[in-house]
Amino acid sequence: MAHLLRNDIGPVAHLTLNQPDKLNPLSDAMLAALSEEIARLAEDRSIRVVVIKGAGRAFCAGHDLKEMTAARAGDDKGRAAFADLFDRCAAMMQSLQRLPQPVIAQVHGLAAAAGCQLVATCDMAVAAETARFGVNGVNIGLFCSTPMVALTRNIPRKHAFEMLTTGAFVDAFRAQELGLVNRVVPEDALDSATTELAETVAAKLATAVRIGKEAFYAQARMPLDEAYRYTGDVMVTNMLDRDTEEGIQAFLEKRAPAWSQE
Amino acid sequence: MAHLLRNDIGPVAHLTLNQPDKLNPLSDAMLAALSEEIARLAEDRSIRVVVIKGAGRAFCAGHDLKEMTAARAGDDKGRAAFADLFDRCAAMMQSLQRLPQPVIAQVHGLAAAAGCQLVATCDMAVAAETARFGVNGVNIGLFCSTPMVALTRNIPRKHAFEMLTTGAFVDAFRAQELGLVNRVVPEDALDSATTELAETVAAKLATAVRIGKEAFYAQARMPLDEAYRYTGDVMVTNMLDRDTEEGIQAFLEKRAPAWSQE
Amino acid sequence: MAHLLRNDIGPVAHLTLNQPDKLNPLSDAMLAALSEEIARLAEDRSIRVVVIKGAGRAFCAGHDLKEMTAARAGDDKGRAAFADLFDRCAAMMQSLQRLPQPVIAQVHGLAAAAGCQLVATCDMAVAAETARFGVNGVNIGLFCSTPMVALTRNIPRKHAFEMLTTGAFVDAFRAQELGLVNRVVPEDALDSATTELAETVAAKLATAVRIGKEAFYAQARMPLDEAYRYTGDVMVTNMLDRDTEEGIQAFLEKRAPAWSQE
Repeated sequence: MAHLLRNDIGPVAHLTLNQPDKLNPLSDAMLAALSEEIARLAEDRSIRVVVIKGAGRAFCAGHDLKEMTAARAGDDKGRAAFADLFDRCAAMMQSLQRLPQPVIAQVHGLAAAAGCQLVATCDMAVAAETARFGVNGVNIGLFCSTPMVALTRNIPRKHAFEMLTTGAFVDAFRAQELGLVNRVVPEDALDSATTELAETVAAKLATAVRIGKEAFYAQARMPLDEAYRYTGDVMVTNMLDRDTEEGIQAFLEKRAPAWSQE
Repeated sequence: MAHLLRNDIGPVAHLTLNQPDKLNPLSDAMLAALSEEIARLAEDRSIRVVVIKGAGRAFCAGHDLKEMTAARAGDDKGRAAFADLFDRCAAMMQSLQRLPQPVIAQVHGLAAAAGCQLVATCDMAVAAETARFGVNGVNIGLFCSTPMVALTRNIPRKHAFEMLTTGAFVDAFRAQELGLVNRVVPEDALDSATTELAETVAAKLATAVRIGKEAFYAQARMPLDEAYRYTGDVMVTNMLDRDTEEGIQAFLEKRAPAWSQE
Repeated sequence: MAHLLRNDIGPVAHLTLNQPDKLNPLSDAMLAALSEEIARLAEDRSIRVVVIKGAGRAFCAGHDLKEMTAARAGDDKGRAAFADLFDRCAAMMQSLQRLPQPVIAQVHGLAAAAGCQLVATCDMAVAAETARFGVNGVNIGLFCSTPMVALTRNIPRKHAFEMLTTGAFVDAFRAQELGLVNRVVPEDALDSATTELAETVAAKLATAVRIGKEAFYAQARMPLDEAYRYTGDVMVTNMLDRDTEEGIQAFLEKRAPAWSQE
C-alpha cells in the first residue's frame, strides 16, 4: 500500500498520509514519498493549492519510533542515522514553505510531535472539533526541539513553552485561539470546509498567489526598511503582469476578469 | 477640496483623509499631503498625539487604481511610476513609526489593502463595530505584498496568510482578537473613545513618551542582550530628565507632578 | 528579615520576594539576593523547576524608587548608579532565561513595571484572578523601556504599545488572552495550580527539559534553516541520551520508563 496518496480535484491536490494502522508516522518511506510529491507539485502549474490530511483516525503521530530505535543497532548507536533523519524531515518541512502553492493542513484526530510540526509548517490549517495537538516528546524524554521551530513561529511564547515542557495536548478550539489553526469545524464538515478554503484560494490569479507566498516568508525575516524595499519590487513585478492589468481593468469596469490562466 | 484635513484639539492633531467620494484612496496627492503633514508634526512640540481617520463612509480603500492604471501609458508600461509610488507609500508608512508622537488609527467602514496597511502601521487603532479590514488585492490579481509587511508585524502568521490569499474581510471584533486593533466601540462612540485614548496618552510626560516610542520599535529588532543594553541607556537618559525627577518625587510625596512641559 | 526566601518542596524551589511592606521592590538587595540564588540554582541538579512569588498582598511593584532617588545625590546626579542598576536588573532577568530549569511566575495582586517584566521574563506564569499587570512607569514620567523588552516578546505589538503609553493595568484574564500568563485561577487555588504545573514539568526527564529550554530561546533568534540545523543537532544529542533511549523503549513496550535520574 502506498504511504502517500494523491488525489487531484480540479486545481487542488489532496495528499493523504496513508499508514493508518501506525497513525501515519513520518517514517523514512513517508518522508521520501512526501518529498518526492512536493518536488513534483512544485513543477505542476495545473495545481494551485495543496491539502495534506491523514488516513484513518489520526492526522499524524510524529516520527516512527520503532524505525528510529532500530537505527541504534549501528556502530555509532544511530548518530548518523538520526542526523540524517532530522535533516530529511527539516528539508521536507522547508520545502512546503518553498512550494509555490499554498498548503493547507486538514487535521482530525491526533497531530503529535512532528505531526504537530507539520500542521504548524503548512501555510494554513483547518481542524475538526475532535483534533488534538501536542508536542509530547518530552513525555518519553525526547524534547520536541525540531517541532518547536515551527510551533514557536505560530503561537505566543509562553503557551509554546507550556506545550513543550508539559507535553499536554490542546484541543482544536484552543489551537485556533493560539494561532495554530485557522478554522475549526465539526468532523463531518471537515472535508467540505477545507475544500471551500482551498477552492477560494485556487480561484485567485495563480501568479499573484505564487508571488505573494514567496514574499510572505521572505519579508518576515527582514528589518522594516528592507522588507519594504523588497516587497515594493514584488509589487512592481506583480503590477506588470498582463493578468493583473486585466484584473484591475475589470475591477474598474465592474466586470469579471478574463485571465489567461483560467 | 483639500485631500487631507488637520484639526488640532488641544495637544491632539486629527488628520482626516478627505476624498470621501473615492473612499479616501492613497493617491499621489493624498500620499504627498500625508507626508508633508507628518513632517510638520514631527517638528511640532505642541502636538502630543496624532489621530488619523477617514471622511465619509470609509477609512481608506487603499491605492488609487485609476491613477495607477493611467501610469501604464508610459513607455515603460508604468514600471518607474509604480516603483516610485510604492517607494513613496513605504516612506510615508515608515515616517509614521518614526514620528515622535504616538499615532492612533480611528477606523470606521472599510480599511482595505493599503488602507489596512495604514491601520497596521499606526501605533494603536480604535475601530467602530462597523469597521471591516481586508488585504483584498489578491481578488484583482495584485497580492498585497507591501501591506503584508505591516500586517504580519501585527497578527499571527496563519491568520495573516489566510487574509492575504483569500482576500476575505474580517470584522472589527475579529480584528481585535487578532491584534490589529486595540478597541472596538459602537460607531457613535468612535470619536469619544479615540479622543479618550488620545488624551490619556497626551497627558503623560511628552519626553518620556517620545523616548519610549522610539525605543519600542528599535529594541524589537535586536537580540535580547543588545535590546537590554540599548534600553538600559534609554532608561538612564529618561531618569536624568528634570521632569522625570519631578514625576518620581511627586509620586513618593503622593502629590501631582509639576511638569515644566505642561 | 531576608529579602528572598527559598523553600524547596521535592524538586521544586519556591523563591519568595519578601519585602511585603514595600510590595517586594527589585531593590539593590533584592536583585543581589535573586542573582545569587539563581546562580546557586543553576548548579543544583536536585531542583527541576523554580517558582517565583511575592510575600504579602503583591507580586512585585517594580524598582525601588526611594533607593533610586537617593542615588541622585551623587556628583553625576546618579547617572553611574542608574546605569549600574539597569545592568544588574537586565543581567538578573537574562539569567532566568539561561537557568537550566524552567521558571514559573506565581502572580497575585500587583505586577507593575519591572515586576511585570519579571512575569514576562519567566518561562511560564500562573495568575490569581486578582492579579493586575501594568508597565505604568509612564505615569511618573519614566517610560518602562527595559520592561518593554520582555513584554514585547510576550504579547502582540499594538496591545504592548497601549499598555506602555497609557500606563493602564490589565486584569489576569486579559493578561492570559494577550499571552502574558498561561493560566488564571481563583486566588485560593493559586498555590495548588502553580504546584501542579511545576510538578508536571518536574516529572519529565530533566536532561530533556534542560536541552529543550536552552534550545527554545536560542532557535527563536535564528532564520528557519539555521534553526533547523541547530535543533537537528539538539535532537541527535537528545536521542543518544541513555535515559531517552529508555524512555522510548518503555513507550514502545507500553511500560513506565526506569530513568537513572529519578
